[in-house]
Amino acid sequence: MAFSHIRNWESSTTMSRFAGLTPLLAPQSIAVVGASSDATRIGGRPIAYMKAQNFQGTLLPINPNRAEIQGIKAYPSVSALPETPDAAIVAVPAELATQAIEDLAARGCKAVVMFTAGFAEMDEAGAVAQQKLVNIAKTSGMRILGPNCLGVFDARRSYYATFSSSFDSGWPVMGRIGIASQSGAYGTHLYTLARNRGIGASLCVMTGNEADVTVGECIGWLAENPEVDVIAVYAEGIRESEGLIAALQAAKDARKPVVMQKVGRSELGGKAAQSHTASIAGDDAVTEAVMNEFGVFRAVNSEQMLDIAHTATRKIYPARNTLGVITVSGGAGVLISDVAESLGLQMPEMPVATQKKLRELVPFCAPRNPVDATAQVSNDVTLVKTFTESMVRDGGYSSVLGFFSMTASSRRWPSISEQLNQVKAENPGRLYVLSVIVPPEGRDKLEADGWVVHEDPTRAVTAIDAMGRFGAAFDAPKPAPAPTVPPVKLPAATPTEAEAKRLLAEAGIQSAPEAACATAEAAVAAAERFGYPVVMKILSPDILHKSEIGGVLLDVSDAAGVRDGFALLLERAKQAAPAARIEGVLVAKQLKGGVECIMGIIRDPVFGPMAMFGLGGIFVEILKDVVFRRCPFGEDVAEQMIRSIKGAPLLQGARGRPPADIKALATMLSRLSAFAAAGGEKLVSIDLNPVFAMPDGQGAFAADAVIEVAG
Amino acid sequence: MAFSHIRNWESSTTMSRFAGLTPLLAPQSIAVVGASSDATRIGGRPIAYMKAQNFQGTLLPINPNRAEIQGIKAYPSVSALPETPDAAIVAVPAELATQAIEDLAARGCKAVVMFTAGFAEMDEAGAVAQQKLVNIAKTSGMRILGPNCLGVFDARRSYYATFSSSFDSGWPVMGRIGIASQSGAYGTHLYTLARNRGIGASLCVMTGNEADVTVGECIGWLAENPEVDVIAVYAEGIRESEGLIAALQAAKDARKPVVMQKVGRSELGGKAAQSHTASIAGDDAVTEAVMNEFGVFRAVNSEQMLDIAHTATRKIYPARNTLGVITVSGGAGVLISDVAESLGLQMPEMPVATQKKLRELVPFCAPRNPVDATAQVSNDVTLVKTFTESMVRDGGYSSVLGFFSMTASSRRWPSISEQLNQVKAENPGRLYVLSVIVPPEGRDKLEADGWVVHEDPTRAVTAIDAMGRFGAAFDAPKPAPAPTVPPVKLPAATPTEAEAKRLLAEAGIQSAPEAACATAEAAVAAAERFGYPVVMKILSPDILHKSEIGGVLLDVSDAAGVRDGFALLLERAKQAAPAARIEGVLVAKQLKGGVECIMGIIRDPVFGPMAMFGLGGIFVEILKDVVFRRCPFGEDVAEQMIRSIKGAPLLQGARGRPPADIKALATMLSRLSAFAAAGGEKLVSIDLNPVFAMPDGQGAFAADAVIEVAG
Repeated sequence: MAFSHIRNWESSTTMSRFAGLTPLLAPQSIAVVGASSDATRIGGRPIAYMKAQNFQGTLLPINPNRAEIQGIKAYPSVSALPETPDAAIVAVPAELATQAIEDLAARGCKAVVMFTAGFAEMDEAGAVAQQKLVNIAKTSGMRILGPNCLGVFDARRSYYATFSSSFDSGWPVMGRIGIASQSGAYGTHLYTLARNRGIGASLCVMTGNEADVTVGECIGWLAENPEVDVIAVYAEGIRESEGLIAALQAAKDARKPVVMQKVGRSELGGKAAQSHTASIAGDDAVTEAVMNEFGVFRAVNSEQMLDIAHTATRKIYPARNTLGVITVSGGAGVLISDVAESLGLQMPEMPVATQKKLRELVPFCAPRNPVDATAQVSNDVTLVKTFTESMVRDGGYSSVLGFFSMTASSRRWPSISEQLNQVKAENPGRLYVLSVIVPPEGRDKLEADGWVVHEDPTRAVTAIDAMGRFGAAFDAPKPAPAPTVPPVKLPAATPTEAEAKRLLAEAGIQSAPEAACATAEAAVAAAERFGYPVVMKILSPDILHKSEIGGVLLDVSDAAGVRDGFALLLERAKQAAPAARIEGVLVAKQLKGGVECIMGIIRDPVFGPMAMFGLGGIFVEILKDVVFRRCPFGEDVAEQMIRSIKGAPLLQGARGRPPADIKALATMLSRLSAFAAAGGEKLVSIDLNPVFAMPDGQGAFAADAVIEVAG
Repeated sequence: MAFSHIRNWESSTTMSRFAGLTPLLAPQSIAVVGASSDATRIGGRPIAYMKAQNFQGTLLPINPNRAEIQGIKAYPSVSALPETPDAAIVAVPAELATQAIEDLAARGCKAVVMFTAGFAEMDEAGAVAQQKLVNIAKTSGMRILGPNCLGVFDARRSYYATFSSSFDSGWPVMGRIGIASQSGAYGTHLYTLARNRGIGASLCVMTGNEADVTVGECIGWLAENPEVDVIAVYAEGIRESEGLIAALQAAKDARKPVVMQKVGRSELGGKAAQSHTASIAGDDAVTEAVMNEFGVFRAVNSEQMLDIAHTATRKIYPARNTLGVITVSGGAGVLISDVAESLGLQMPEMPVATQKKLRELVPFCAPRNPVDATAQVSNDVTLVKTFTESMVRDGGYSSVLGFFSMTASSRRWPSISEQLNQVKAENPGRLYVLSVIVPPEGRDKLEADGWVVHEDPTRAVTAIDAMGRFGAAFDAPKPAPAPTVPPVKLPAATPTEAEAKRLLAEAGIQSAPEAACATAEAAVAAAERFGYPVVMKILSPDILHKSEIGGVLLDVSDAAGVRDGFALLLERAKQAAPAARIEGVLVAKQLKGGVECIMGIIRDPVFGPMAMFGLGGIFVEILKDVVFRRCPFGEDVAEQMIRSIKGAPLLQGARGRPPADIKALATMLSRLSAFAAAGGEKLVSIDLNPVFAMPDGQGAFAADAVIEVAG
């Protein structure tokens, strides 16, 4: 690729959100602080790699003891450099590294790749030293990748600011997948797997400790890079949201699929759980919600990540994906159908007339879809074209999968693949995938012909389905705006239930009819007004979890019960919390016939307020059947959330129930999200538990509300 | 392998359950009906393969038009053969095949491999022709593989009774995995994948239409074959149970893992659902229950099948499996922990003292488990041994996984692997697995050294976990005997609820206290005796699903309610089913405070009565959270079933409930299974829905019972 092209791209992206990373990720000149003549040392490897691969920019080794390094003129110090480099590699020990960073900032260098370890990943002193780096970066505007990072490489421009030893076994395959990884070891693991499979992933950036540059920003830069079509990400924990959100939005806008492997599912529940919602939300659930929001595909392992990234490089993302299958094995057809059904990928039947036509050709074929041409194709290879053509044209599928297994290693394959290529050439614009067993040369030929090759049919189906998911995300209508709510004025401390409900009511979030009652007679009057049965709860700003002290009475069915209950609750509160301020008893209408739900807000330290929705009781606590979303959002998103949980059929009228008022639930949830966003940093959490979704048209009501305020 | 060895094995297994398949699967002499001189035709390939691989037995080509075939003396007919062959291949068209089968049976041949297609897989006439084959097999005792099958091969004895073209790309790798597949295309797909990965799977039998020999019997023969340690199975639908059950028992007794890929999950619900239980049970759920019963691992795809089968050839099956991980990447460690946690594979922490010791060696290592030795190992490879040895010895793990990724392709690998080999040699008896990226030669060397190599760490963890599951199944105590129940005398037609409950009560299956009442006054008297509230149900042998006609009243709370209810139920029955015989009303105590469950029986056409257990309502209907088991079984199995469902915490005292009487539930479920087994073929289904599991010590009671009887 001509160098001039790169220049052009750089100037075209100067005004973009992530262009500030270009000196780091695509520099024209690079210094190496701690440059070594030994090509196996970390200060020697980048120079050796760039020399071997003929880097077209300027290399500036820095070493106080040598006049040249690996045949290149060296300089004794940063200040002695003849020009200010775009970027510098820092490969000196920690005790020298901070000074080097200061020197580079003073010189006006725009970016640093910092290999040096021994910072926040090690101990408290390291964390302090790392903070110093952050301060230099902030003050000077110089961007720092790392410290404790394996760096970055872009094979297309022969840029190797990395000491990875993975090039011992070969150079990258050129291609349009860009990798961003927080882990160096895993980033190079991934790139090596790609290379061994002949998959083009020539650009890889590894962020290490992320003192400054985050994986989110790198995703953004890749999203803006015209040489990248697909972004593969490995993340352990997202530390910064603004860059990531902007990056995922940029990728989505550019129709570039993001495939992410996020580890750390098992850290769930690791943080102190102040509220009910917080005990369910973990870093992982929150990050997954953000991935879902932007249509990121979460891969279960590196193979799946590469399967999907590679398939995505064909740039065919059918928003309404349908799969047509041509197979020579009935068994494989059933297997493929199983996987498609489990993923929700549609496999419509072939038109009846076409089925009839094919059955006339081969009496014991199976023409429904999967279309099983049977072993007859061995006797007459033209059947491959006839069957595949009928399938593609008459079935109208957006994705086509051919299962030919080891037939692709047989002597008949050249003539069969010729037939397949003809069908493909005559019916463009679809995603063509083959499940075949072939040696690498055969695979490369098929790939060059425009097929995506997956040996295993189940992996092929998963990748095909992912393309449809990308398409659906890219083509999704812009979500509705979040509702506007009045300014939220949180009290200084956690409010009582009644006060919480009043605050929520101002944002349009309805509770069951209720009254705060200071006396037993007031409670009776309220109960008579609402109608029996009623719920009674102790009312105190000092008692947050009322049911734990027996402070909630259900099914109170007459005036005598209300009087006795009033006395009982006061007695229980006095026993359990003698010092608590008691303001009386809350009397509420007991809602019957609704579906019990839960809504909540948890403030995530990275992503801010996150809304949660689930069905009540066992659904949340045993089955963890809940959904999260960043706040705020509109009613359309709220309704999608509600309908996405596994238990959703219960709200849609399963088991002879009346359908629940999902619109009212969605309104409540979106208002809650707006309330949370307006609540600011003081808002720690909200639990609405239970919320009753009444039959359609009758609304949704919070039966309990806890708002937790910081401090 | 010496031929004498094979002879010995055959004589040693003559008395076994599956020895009858030996002439088919390991013949000493084989005829080929329809033998061809053309080595690419189906009648020519087996001869060409056996010649090429030097088959040691006798080959007898049959062709009326030639005196020799591919250099071997040929005979014009079966009757002209100089000796009776152990087995014969039939490779002539369908119109000639039946006669050939008759001739072979008359000659006393013991087995036939029938390639010929055009039988039950094609049409009704084909099914009739196939039945004729079955009759010949039954009458003569000659076993038939197929028709419409790809045959069998055993590379170890150079036996190739197959026309698979998969040998175009290479011969099998010798090894101790045996494959049994219903599909020819998928069986050879699997074998080809194995060969390409260097995995030894040298014996493969493909059963086609299964007119006679079933995949179950082939599993049994492999279980008895001393040359096979692990059995890989591909199945589309099990047609016969006795052979499969005996086979799986034989494999378990011989401690031979069975890995099965069973397709057809998506056919669930395809059959007419007469009963509630039947609408949930599908062929797939039933087959899965049988797999679970015998510790069969159900693989999701061929890669997983081979991963697990290959790992199993090390013959290390730790019943209480624990995993210790040595890694050079923290990220990979987290990924591995994620997968282990999701599978329930234990990863205990290292002893604190050892952690301290390792942290003194490498200050910023992570020694808990995963043990991350960090990139320091690049500087000092002896750390690999120190860390791994500490992990293996002090941690005492039964399985050890090393993640070294592309380090295994680097120049340092020979010295690192030497260190690892030392640790392995000094600490035998554990399962040693490596996740590395290496070329095939490197992989083969590691495998020869005794490591199991998986490139992907998530696949490695899944395979390691599977070994523990095999061990747990092999070492499980013999299940308790099923309870004995009195002989079950089913009525001629489906009985009323009261009669059903009486029948079940004879087997010790308790219902809620109830009385059949012919008059309103009798109903009041019964209700007063039980205490209010009561449930009232219409009593008629002609009304099976009472709730659908409004024939059930809940929460009847006083005598007036009982009187009104009696009249109402009679009126509703009259309206809905004017011709129905009405015997009165059933009055039952309404149980409160129990957990609602469902138990059922469905008669599977292959496996006979299957018991189902689940929690009531949404758990069954929306979440499909149910478990199945072949009848009959004892209380220990019943309790395992109950505790295995996802919703089990609800029975164990979740959400502040009292724990339910699981013992009583288990007693009821095992008695139900014995009742079903004793009920014979007339029993179509049983629904006990709901069953109330009362708090511990208070029993379990069926609140409704439907027994469906055939005819």
